[in-house]
Amino acid sequence: MKSYKKADFPVEKVRRFLEPGPVVLVSSAHKGERDIMTMGWHMILMDEPSLVGCFIWDQNYSRELVRKSKECVINVPTVDLAETVVRIGNSHGPDPDKFEEFGLTAAPAAEVGAPLVAECYANFECKLTDTSLIRRYSLFVFEVVKAHVATSPRYPTTIHYRGDGVFMVSGRNVSYRRLFKPENL
Amino acid sequence: MKSYKKADFPVEKVRRFLEPGPVVLVSSAHKGERDIMTMGWHMILMDEPSLVGCFIWDQNYSRELVRKSKECVINVPTVDLAETVVRIGNSHGPDPDKFEEFGLTAAPAAEVGAPLVAECYANFECKLTDTSLIRRYSLFVFEVVKAHVATSPRYPTTIHYRGDGVFMVSGRNVSYRRLFKPENL
Repeated sequence: MKSYKKADFPVEKVRRFLEPGPVVLVSSAHKGERDIMTMGWHMILMDEPSLVGCFIWDQNYSRELVRKSKECVINVPTVDLAETVVRIGNSHGPDPDKFEEFGLTAAPAAEVGAPLVAECYANFECKLTDTSLIRRYSLFVFEVVKAHVATSPRYPTTIHYRGDGVFMVSGRNVSYRRLFKPENL
Repeated sequence: MKSYKKADFPVEKVRRFLEPGPVVLVSSAHKGERDIMTMGWHMILMDEPSLVGCFIWDQNYSRELVRKSKECVINVPTVDLAETVVRIGNSHGPDPDKFEEFGLTAAPAAEVGAPLVAECYANFECKLTDTSLIRRYSLFVFEVVKAHVATSPRYPTTIHYRGDGVFMVSGRNVSYRRLFKPENL
């Protein structure tokens, strides 16, 4: 399995990896239990502080672990993990342990109790900062408190869900920097 | 400029076009004024009803038009419009009129007063259903009440913002349908 060398990354810039809309893995732990879920619905809500809104459905086993621990890690997988991401998204409940089942490495986080999924391109350690939208929208608002990002490549090849079992793989990168006002960069 | 032939599309399935995370154009109108803004922060919140959360910053001229009219259209542009999308994102205020300035066609919507941006691949007519998160998060919750989607191609080539003036262009599509449980498709 692919292994990325990572470095600390500024939390106010994690939008660079979430705004393009990749499917991510959310890892969580509480009192000796741990889980990984696949998540497709999320958005940046603010950059300073670094807030991310995440939809965690009440049918996800992870939901209770996140609610009780008030923490999680958002992990950004690349296309080499696509089959694993799909398999996790189609498995349910606490057993078997998803790290063991899917051959993933649970690495210790710095600021939260939830484990990092080591094989992912980026890992964002998060604290739950607003629980008021959980009941109405299953929307969890997290603050990213620590970010680990691969030092290479510059742009990860991520997967994006189109529905019906089909994923779009991120393609070429084009700069329109010349058209931006400096204050918008 | 590219022109798409469109058909009505089920509103509960618009997630197919928003969940991959493209940059979109939001069009709005109120009392003879109209505007278009570029938006990168959005997420699906529910599929039935079809709810979308959208970040509309208080520095956007569009924000007041949307707040007052309680309507908008979310338009999904393809890569042929990338330069226009960037130019709109870097222009500000009511003048000049953005449809005229950028050579875009304002087509009448069926259910809302805001115009469709005809050149886009898809147009989702929206009503503002929850204003309670505007003050805290600049988050507007819209219900998609009518959707128009191009009949071809099946998958649009969209643009996704990576920051620093760089956009990712959507790439190849891969099916993992065989790994899905039927109820998850």
